[in-house]
Amino acid sequence: MHEIEALTFDVFGTVVDWRASVAREAETMLAPKGYALDWGAFADGWRARYVPAMAQVSDGSRPFVILDVLHRENLVDLLKETKVEGLSEAEIDALNLAWHRLDPWPDVLEGMAQLRRRFILASLSNGNVRLMVDMARRAGLAWDAILGAEVARAYKPSPEAYDSAARMLGLAPAQCLMVAAHPTDLAAAAQRGFRTAYVHRPLERGPDREPKRPDVKAFDHHAEDFIDLARQLGA
Amino acid sequence: MHEIEALTFDVFGTVVDWRASVAREAETMLAPKGYALDWGAFADGWRARYVPAMAQVSDGSRPFVILDVLHRENLVDLLKETKVEGLSEAEIDALNLAWHRLDPWPDVLEGMAQLRRRFILASLSNGNVRLMVDMARRAGLAWDAILGAEVARAYKPSPEAYDSAARMLGLAPAQCLMVAAHPTDLAAAAQRGFRTAYVHRPLERGPDREPKRPDVKAFDHHAEDFIDLARQLGA
Repeated sequence: MHEIEALTFDVFGTVVDWRASVAREAETMLAPKGYALDWGAFADGWRARYVPAMAQVSDGSRPFVILDVLHRENLVDLLKETKVEGLSEAEIDALNLAWHRLDPWPDVLEGMAQLRRRFILASLSNGNVRLMVDMARRAGLAWDAILGAEVARAYKPSPEAYDSAARMLGLAPAQCLMVAAHPTDLAAAAQRGFRTAYVHRPLERGPDREPKRPDVKAFDHHAEDFIDLARQLGA
Repeated sequence: MHEIEALTFDVFGTVVDWRASVAREAETMLAPKGYALDWGAFADGWRARYVPAMAQVSDGSRPFVILDVLHRENLVDLLKETKVEGLSEAEIDALNLAWHRLDPWPDVLEGMAQLRRRFILASLSNGNVRLMVDMARRAGLAWDAILGAEVARAYKPSPEAYDSAARMLGLAPAQCLMVAAHPTDLAAAAQRGFRTAYVHRPLERGPDREPKRPDVKAFDHHAEDFIDLARQLGA
């Protein structure tokens, strides 16, 4: 049995609260222009376009582009749907950077500090490198390495996204623990030989939309938050 | 004129004292086995094989392999030359990790902390990701991102090593400042549009082998160490 040496993290939803943060950023820019939208629904609409956009890259129907590019295309589409008009290109660019300014869940900084004493911590996100750098600098996240889609040139749940992370960490997949709030991500990591830790994030989709907990035998660890995970891993 | 947003660092020699550190690691492993070599010369011999080994990748005569692989091949060759015999494969692997345990120059931690308040700091080294992660964790180096050869699948001074770093940072090359103790690295970065900062490291090659300073007009900045560089950049 290999010892775990590195933790690889999903980020959107697992480390940071994308919904409340994107809602806040959209409101900050658009409310002064007179728009009174349901800002949580605006964030949901943006996020809903995320998986289909990445699928076009993963199925080969378009070449790899970074998530900032997909986010911007999706934003233009969403602005049309929500009838937000008259933004300049520079304003659309600025709003697109909402995804660079996401807040971590309350347990994250303390939990990561505990985990990092014992394990290598790497992001394994579909976000691009600069997005992750901006988010980490703003929030104080201390990654040992930023891996994931841009470095792999493949989006999760494609096998190469996981394979390249283990390879760059110089580890067998079984020495890597994938940490995510999303069963599909964990299942894809497990397929590539990673160990898995589910972290429950009841508020990811907003209040009163708590996700169903996976079966307790589905993954190697099931944690309430990163501090609970650190305790379970003896970190 | 673009503002500098990120500093990209050469690491071996610029951030860390590879020679004294490798000499120490080699002595620690081999002296107890009865070998009494000139350990500085041992480090020099290992390092001397580095550029020719990378050149085979850069000129296309072999596919990309990470520096850990090149270092190990070079070590086997060096052990033969220095008549060090009877090491197990595991011992050779362990000695190869000497390059993961290099000490920073005395000004580095303070200088990087100052620079990081204002700029994104990324490694742009020929070392592989895991090597950089191990070095950073041991020495306390706080990189915002680990870029360079493995991520680019190209060794400096190949153009793609620099181009991919700027691209992943989401910046124009002119927004990136290459920091290095080596004129060839800086000249190659400048060719790709980077700005350049020479840092003088008089002890890189050992005592009494101080490198010649480049002409004061050769690069955008000429610094005595990272604290001096931070002062020059107003960080």
